[in-house]
Amino acid sequence: MAVYTQVSEVELARFVTGHGLGELRSCKGIAEGVENTNYLIETVEGRFILTLYEKRVAPENLPFYLGLMEHLASKGIACPLPVRDRDGEQVAELAGRAAAIVTFLDGISVRMPMPRHCALLGETLARMHLAGSDYSRSLENALGPAGWVQLYDRFEARADEVLPGLSGLVGTEFATLLPSWPKALPQGVIHADLFPDNVFFLGDRLSGVIDFYFACNDLLAYDIAICLNAWCFDADRRFDRDKAAALIGGYQRVRPLTPEEGRAMPVLARGAALRFLLTRAHDWIATPKDAIVKPHDPADYVARILQHRQMTRPSDYGIED
Amino acid sequence: MAVYTQVSEVELARFVTGHGLGELRSCKGIAEGVENTNYLIETVEGRFILTLYEKRVAPENLPFYLGLMEHLASKGIACPLPVRDRDGEQVAELAGRAAAIVTFLDGISVRMPMPRHCALLGETLARMHLAGSDYSRSLENALGPAGWVQLYDRFEARADEVLPGLSGLVGTEFATLLPSWPKALPQGVIHADLFPDNVFFLGDRLSGVIDFYFACNDLLAYDIAICLNAWCFDADRRFDRDKAAALIGGYQRVRPLTPEEGRAMPVLARGAALRFLLTRAHDWIATPKDAIVKPHDPADYVARILQHRQMTRPSDYGIED
Repeated sequence: MAVYTQVSEVELARFVTGHGLGELRSCKGIAEGVENTNYLIETVEGRFILTLYEKRVAPENLPFYLGLMEHLASKGIACPLPVRDRDGEQVAELAGRAAAIVTFLDGISVRMPMPRHCALLGETLARMHLAGSDYSRSLENALGPAGWVQLYDRFEARADEVLPGLSGLVGTEFATLLPSWPKALPQGVIHADLFPDNVFFLGDRLSGVIDFYFACNDLLAYDIAICLNAWCFDADRRFDRDKAAALIGGYQRVRPLTPEEGRAMPVLARGAALRFLLTRAHDWIATPKDAIVKPHDPADYVARILQHRQMTRPSDYGIED
Repeated sequence: MAVYTQVSEVELARFVTGHGLGELRSCKGIAEGVENTNYLIETVEGRFILTLYEKRVAPENLPFYLGLMEHLASKGIACPLPVRDRDGEQVAELAGRAAAIVTFLDGISVRMPMPRHCALLGETLARMHLAGSDYSRSLENALGPAGWVQLYDRFEARADEVLPGLSGLVGTEFATLLPSWPKALPQGVIHADLFPDNVFFLGDRLSGVIDFYFACNDLLAYDIAICLNAWCFDADRRFDRDKAAALIGGYQRVRPLTPEEGRAMPVLARGAALRFLLTRAHDWIATPKDAIVKPHDPADYVARILQHRQMTRPSDYGIED
């Protein structure tokens, strides 16, 4: 749900031509991503996504995100490839915003992933981790444990407005997770927001991964932990071990986890749930009650945390010794 | 800005297959129209728009709207063609909504129309009026003069919250327009909402007209009057007689106005401005002040009405004797 910036047809045509894409044939504002304005454009050269970066994306980080897509695409990952303009730039200004054009990817997002989707996701995630290993840029994770504490400071006083008892729950999680958070695991570039709406499937294959605007350097296994939360809970918020086993099995077929990574998964999964609980709770408070675009429900992640507390062994997540 | 209803990939695939369109290759929620949920879908058969009708469109009127598109398309008007499903139906249920699939049209909406766009618009509007003359269904205009009065009744008490003095202005318009509203002019099927965002251009031609969900039977010249308001005022709200002359000139090359229609244009144009002032003022009051999707500014139409009051001759609108 995201068309925040309108672009005149004259500016748009100039921008597209400046990228060597020829005459514009159509342009539709699309509801992809919550952070930016996105247009699906079509020219004689094919279909592309035009993104205008809104306030939540820091312009200084764009070279990291777009460079990563270019790097991963060059290694065969099915992700959008930024189209450079005639000056060789990936980012230029349009309608007062930083803007970029990337290639369009076919495929459909799956709202109710099945184990086979999770297996394909795990495999692709591992391939992304390997492909990112020689990426030259780096970017710290602003939503790692230190970031959680900073974010919570901004709404702690109102936390119980979101859900009664939320402040107690967050306090317990901080007390448990912050001292035990692993540091010595394999690191690299992670996607960090690989929810089902950022992954496309076509028939029996995974056809695309999009939205790299939370990508950063962090523990590789933490990216898996995020996916466990995003893909392996059913609509009734119950953990589905079969999906988790499929996801981690797919991952390990490409990149086997170290024993330390396996042992850390329960705490990483619980931490990933806390990370999304905190951003959702923050957005819940920041969004007017009668807004048309509803924020995600933070209760989804309270339910996940309560289950993670009971899941202390790697095998609970489908990781076999 | 319109994706109100989410559809699961399983339901979606079944719906698309049920229309004989083969495997879905992509599906994007698009920001087209304010009233409905729209997805741009692509299959092996090409690109289509899937629309789920939200509360503002009465399901009983869908056969009129979709039948009209089919009728006009069969006469060579560049409008979406509804795709019938395997039962021969234009409308079926999807995700608890009435839903339809129509063909996709190439082209770009023009935010700042030039006289050449207005001329193409006038010509197409006249062709639509002729093509609609033998359409078998009919539907009364719910937003004709009687509808204005009913709509205003719903927010008259709060009108001055929108703009100080609005109630006085509306009172004057009602007193002037209702007794003098023409009745004996040529009638037929009108689009009734032909704003620039509902018209696509490609190079030097008009490539598409969309959004027939306000279409109805009314005075043909009133459809021109709506276009004069929608296309012939500049961003600073000033009337541009050159654009009006181009629009009406283009129209008359296909269907010459009767002398009575020409003489009625000043009152029709003023009435059309009042119609959009009233719906915008109503939506302004109904929309929360902090909503993400901002309603259109009613002041645009106050400015139009004040100018229409000074324009009493057909030649003021570019209509020559």
